[in-house]
Amino acid sequence: MPEFLTLLPPDEARSLLLSHLSALQTVSETVDLGSAVGRVLAEDVIAPHPLPDFRRSTVDGYAVQAANTHGASDSLPAYLNLIGEVPMGDKPAFEIEPGQCALIHTGGMLPNGSDAVVMLEYTQETRGAGQTPNPAQEIEIFRSAADGENVIQIGEDVARGQMVQAKGTVLRPAEIGGLAALGITTLRVSNKVRVGLISTGDEVIDPSRSPRPGQVRDVNTYTLAALVAKGGGIAVQYGIIADRFEALKDAAAKALSECDVVIITAGSSASTRDMTADVIRSLGEPGVLVHGINTRPGKPTILGVCKGRAVIGLPGNPVSALVNGYLFVVPVIEKLMGVLPRPKPTALAQLTLNLPSQAGREDWWPVKLTANAQSKAAKYTAAPIFGKSNLIFTLAAADGLLCIPPDATGLSAGEIVEVFLL
Amino acid sequence: MPEFLTLLPPDEARSLLLSHLSALQTVSETVDLGSAVGRVLAEDVIAPHPLPDFRRSTVDGYAVQAANTHGASDSLPAYLNLIGEVPMGDKPAFEIEPGQCALIHTGGMLPNGSDAVVMLEYTQETRGAGQTPNPAQEIEIFRSAADGENVIQIGEDVARGQMVQAKGTVLRPAEIGGLAALGITTLRVSNKVRVGLISTGDEVIDPSRSPRPGQVRDVNTYTLAALVAKGGGIAVQYGIIADRFEALKDAAAKALSECDVVIITAGSSASTRDMTADVIRSLGEPGVLVHGINTRPGKPTILGVCKGRAVIGLPGNPVSALVNGYLFVVPVIEKLMGVLPRPKPTALAQLTLNLPSQAGREDWWPVKLTANAQSKAAKYTAAPIFGKSNLIFTLAAADGLLCIPPDATGLSAGEIVEVFLL
Repeated sequence: MPEFLTLLPPDEARSLLLSHLSALQTVSETVDLGSAVGRVLAEDVIAPHPLPDFRRSTVDGYAVQAANTHGASDSLPAYLNLIGEVPMGDKPAFEIEPGQCALIHTGGMLPNGSDAVVMLEYTQETRGAGQTPNPAQEIEIFRSAADGENVIQIGEDVARGQMVQAKGTVLRPAEIGGLAALGITTLRVSNKVRVGLISTGDEVIDPSRSPRPGQVRDVNTYTLAALVAKGGGIAVQYGIIADRFEALKDAAAKALSECDVVIITAGSSASTRDMTADVIRSLGEPGVLVHGINTRPGKPTILGVCKGRAVIGLPGNPVSALVNGYLFVVPVIEKLMGVLPRPKPTALAQLTLNLPSQAGREDWWPVKLTANAQSKAAKYTAAPIFGKSNLIFTLAAADGLLCIPPDATGLSAGEIVEVFLL
Repeated sequence: MPEFLTLLPPDEARSLLLSHLSALQTVSETVDLGSAVGRVLAEDVIAPHPLPDFRRSTVDGYAVQAANTHGASDSLPAYLNLIGEVPMGDKPAFEIEPGQCALIHTGGMLPNGSDAVVMLEYTQETRGAGQTPNPAQEIEIFRSAADGENVIQIGEDVARGQMVQAKGTVLRPAEIGGLAALGITTLRVSNKVRVGLISTGDEVIDPSRSPRPGQVRDVNTYTLAALVAKGGGIAVQYGIIADRFEALKDAAAKALSECDVVIITAGSSASTRDMTADVIRSLGEPGVLVHGINTRPGKPTILGVCKGRAVIGLPGNPVSALVNGYLFVVPVIEKLMGVLPRPKPTALAQLTLNLPSQAGREDWWPVKLTANAQSKAAKYTAAPIFGKSNLIFTLAAADGLLCIPPDATGLSAGEIVEVFLL
């Protein structure tokens, strides 16, 4: 059975696949800001004006000329004439001249002539305390203010013309807020990548049907559709195709013509896996790039590119298919959408037992995380879940995956490990 | 300014708020499995049948009676009569008797009478090699097989009647696959929690409008709507309300009657923050639970419950509002939807510089993560982003938040820290 003559390390396999793909440049759509969270910016965002575009106070206090407060202290206060109150949301109708001050609230616009704000707690009204400020009032200042103190300067958040968000940014709540602040209420985002899903296997039936003896329900179409949706794509289902070359080739050719990526989850046996590789070879150049990856689960994974589009053959075992979906399908979706990478979500945990591994192979173990109040080093313990890679509930019971890298021969009980959250 | 007489630690404040809330028991809806990813299970899922419900081979090989292979070795093989091939997706029409074997593929159903599978590579055909198996053929077996070897037993994934997924589980691709395997194609999920959003501030205008001097665009409605959507809820916008008690009270009462949670982002000044607290007190018992939290940013946060529903007053500064949305709003949504907790996504990083902090206060710093190929200890460096908490782009530039706990007086350059991903 010379099925896998050369097993590529997963990082190398992924790089090879991605090197044959380029971002889908021309496809984007316009969305409202209110529905843009999770979408990918299709163009750079340039600030049309500075933020803020007027000088704002960061505290409640008195707008002053800083020089008028120099040397002020509890025992030797400065005395300033109160000339008014800055209205919220409007430009003050007055200017601050030497010896004057104005009441200002957090977020208020600094009057011309002022260059700093003294916090209320370092001041005292000398007459008419507690009443509306009147022009006759005098304010005692007990602290020296520096030029610019408690003031947000024009452009301190962003300058006019600044590139504030790069093409490829996945929009999170913070980015949405930045766009709102700049008045950008519609924007161009990348179209969602279309991922065609084909299941094979004469034993596989649709989940809505009742299996006869020897039949199993199609799991992979559903796990991979959910993964694609989470990864920012759109899954297009092509159903369950019989284990015959022509049928599989026809289905794959149709999917390839309609989608940006095609995934074939092979039947489990070696013969159907080989058929997947043959189909990929038949669909166009360069065809199969990688057949066999030095990882567990997922050794039989096939990575191919046909006419510029990725065609991936995943093992039929549900755990292998899903784990390798995380490893290879999500990065392809991100590459095609031009996504700027962010760190993958992980959790720090203490391993509960020794995990052996074969040197040279990258292992991905499902682990269950449990809160661990005792340890300062990690908030969780990670307990590996043992089970054959056909057993989807081993993965449903897991919080994440633990990677044992190729250069390790295992991990030891008590080690602090980084678990990739599912 | 005796605004915050008692500042509660954030954990304590959150626990107090959550202790006044209970999961919304009665509201759930039915969805198709294909659109269930990210939703929350509204009832326990019980396996209606075992998985698998027939014995399956995990390899390509020969189904045998293990006892017939005992003692077999390269030099002394066992000889078994090949009686047929197991069809994929069907029950074999034959039984294995002593001295017999049958060709079986990965995922195939074990014939009655057999109890183990010997992998192809430990066998050899004695006659007619390479041809379709025929009843006259004999197979050499070079390895002893243990009872059950290379076989998935009935119920090995899940047993009939087993509770496989608990109410409150957030459905990820793996859970979706488990449900597909059991033939559960429609299911009950929790309704999305409705979160009413009210902005206040006479200086605040809708992002679609052009600000006059002194005006700023409403950021908080948009960041919080995105956060609510990510957290599994539905945001309902009540617009920007003037800084007047009656107007704010009317808007909040309307939101409270239509939503499960109400968030008021206060104007920035102390007086409008106090107004928010007064409004919450006016809406029903118990009213304000917490006014002032020992955290930065977010000290002025107000946590309240009125008539069993959470009403939260967040600071008007965009960074404070969003950070405290992560700290207090998301946990409320999860509590109301009965979500079973999972670890929060983090990344491990090495801090680039010293970060001082005030003992007793919990600080949340925005940090930028950069890949750090040199270090074995952490894949990233974390550089704190400095900026006033009014500057939304400090958060848009951040990959995550770094927490300095209340019992620390800071963190040191070079320390390995866990960064909470935004």
